[in-house]
Amino acid sequence: MQRPVSAAQVSLATVAAEAGVSVATVSRIVNGETRRASAQTVMRVQAAVVALGYQPNHVGRALRRRQSRVVAMLAPNLDNPAMAAIAVSTEAALRAAGYVMILCDTHDRADLQDEYLQAMRSQLVQGYVLVSAVTSPALSDALARGEPIVFVSRRNPEGGAYVGIDNHAAGAAAADYCLARSITEPAVIFPAQGSSSTAARVAGFVERLIVRGVEADRIRRASAPGLSHLQVGYDAARALVAASAGGWPKGLLCVSDMMAYGAYRLAVERGVAIPETCLLIGIDANPLNAWIAPWLTSVHIPYPDFGAKVVEQLTALWGGTMPDDILLPHSLEP
Amino acid sequence: MQRPVSAAQVSLATVAAEAGVSVATVSRIVNGETRRASAQTVMRVQAAVVALGYQPNHVGRALRRRQSRVVAMLAPNLDNPAMAAIAVSTEAALRAAGYVMILCDTHDRADLQDEYLQAMRSQLVQGYVLVSAVTSPALSDALARGEPIVFVSRRNPEGGAYVGIDNHAAGAAAADYCLARSITEPAVIFPAQGSSSTAARVAGFVERLIVRGVEADRIRRASAPGLSHLQVGYDAARALVAASAGGWPKGLLCVSDMMAYGAYRLAVERGVAIPETCLLIGIDANPLNAWIAPWLTSVHIPYPDFGAKVVEQLTALWGGTMPDDILLPHSLEP
Repeated sequence: MQRPVSAAQVSLATVAAEAGVSVATVSRIVNGETRRASAQTVMRVQAAVVALGYQPNHVGRALRRRQSRVVAMLAPNLDNPAMAAIAVSTEAALRAAGYVMILCDTHDRADLQDEYLQAMRSQLVQGYVLVSAVTSPALSDALARGEPIVFVSRRNPEGGAYVGIDNHAAGAAAADYCLARSITEPAVIFPAQGSSSTAARVAGFVERLIVRGVEADRIRRASAPGLSHLQVGYDAARALVAASAGGWPKGLLCVSDMMAYGAYRLAVERGVAIPETCLLIGIDANPLNAWIAPWLTSVHIPYPDFGAKVVEQLTALWGGTMPDDILLPHSLEP
Repeated sequence: MQRPVSAAQVSLATVAAEAGVSVATVSRIVNGETRRASAQTVMRVQAAVVALGYQPNHVGRALRRRQSRVVAMLAPNLDNPAMAAIAVSTEAALRAAGYVMILCDTHDRADLQDEYLQAMRSQLVQGYVLVSAVTSPALSDALARGEPIVFVSRRNPEGGAYVGIDNHAAGAAAADYCLARSITEPAVIFPAQGSSSTAARVAGFVERLIVRGVEADRIRRASAPGLSHLQVGYDAARALVAASAGGWPKGLLCVSDMMAYGAYRLAVERGVAIPETCLLIGIDANPLNAWIAPWLTSVHIPYPDFGAKVVEQLTALWGGTMPDDILLPHSLEP
């Protein structure tokens, strides 16, 4: 995940070095406090700002105006790369819009989600971004009060602004990918405590296979309990390939990359070649895959684009409008 | 990173189901509001709490008492698994101590670190956890004001409470590991914009090799610019193995697992077998390694233990004491 070097990355220190003044002086001048500096210094700093393309950060200015410009993101698992990608993208988009994002880890638990919703309310945040939210009493209360809340990746059953992908279509794309490679009986694994989004992925996969002529009872499915998709992937794959279940399928959809990593570990332990013997398909296309998991095929979700859409939804809510869902395009690289 | 199912994971909903009452009723009773419930209901809920080992979360209670119990963590890269591990562990330890943690991504930039320090100050947070901080004007100001700040992973040059590992010794352990396997001329790669912690790892590695009889000019070193350790690892490895530099070493220390992932990608592209041809050693021991990077040897850092130590340091600071550094034990699995 290399970040492009852009004008946004020119720091105050770079401007200060270019202008031959202190960072504090640059900071004051770009924030409009020019009284303490000579006209010559102001001009030198402004020239350096233009030459380097420095973009002052509006957060500090907003805060000095004593506006609360804070948005809270509540996410279930900070150690999942997909969550991290959503957090990074949203933080950047909010910062560009002049907001500070603060991030809370709910561990996928309704009670912690409620604690953080209450905590953030007491911090007077201006909006909420709930990634893979669960239903909870404080969430219902917040929605009833009309708080600006954007749901990401998992729709709220009670409605609300949404940013995500078409999970059903993503599952269908995995089915098409298998059939195009003459894998006519691919299998699927998923968490037993599935969310609406994982359920939609499984349904999309199975329904597309059936529509394209695969008999329903030939589509093997397995699940396992737990919150760690790594372990769930391992355990569900083990259940799937147990002798009575018929061994390794030629293609296996795992409803997240983390689940695919778990299935991969089992394959390595069993000496099963991935992807030669079993084509593993994940969903997420974690950036790490290109570096250390080139054996994984994965439905690409444009997480770096999520942030701007989240801000778009929040802006609509702040303007008093309940916006339509935003579905971002997934793709399965050939 | 599977989380153990423990008493801490029993939810309000579980207690409610066990007691046969609503979640709202359980929430009120465990928070001491017993007036609206019958004595029988209170007893039933309390029995369920004991039977299930439910641990009420103190954050909500603290907030209802209108105390600000918020601690801010500023970290450079949320998409680095090591950062995520530190954030997860610290959030859990703070929550157990009755605090809410909010997390800000500084992108390793002094100006963003300053923006977030100022933003969090305006939120009246009770303390700061700075992971791999950089020097910055607002940080100096905060230290001068005596704000409670704990530095993690990277010491502040101007001093302050610290939690981390002995980076010098971690580098030395990698040297010993190579020599024990008759790899007498291992190499090392590191980021050109190195921090004090990466510099200490390199120095510990090189100095131990020299002490144990390796000639200094036989220890090949390479670096590359950039902020993404993945790309830095790839680029630095490429520089290291360029024809004029002498090809692939039998052992290669990468100062982070992310750098090792980068070097691995180059090895795969070049058809170099890892670890058979080149033993790759990282530092971090990311939990993902066991699942998808079994080819990587890595110095283990006990990130799950960091959180409790961070809270210990904060507690000392809140008590008016500047605590000694806490160094957690690293280990290199055999």
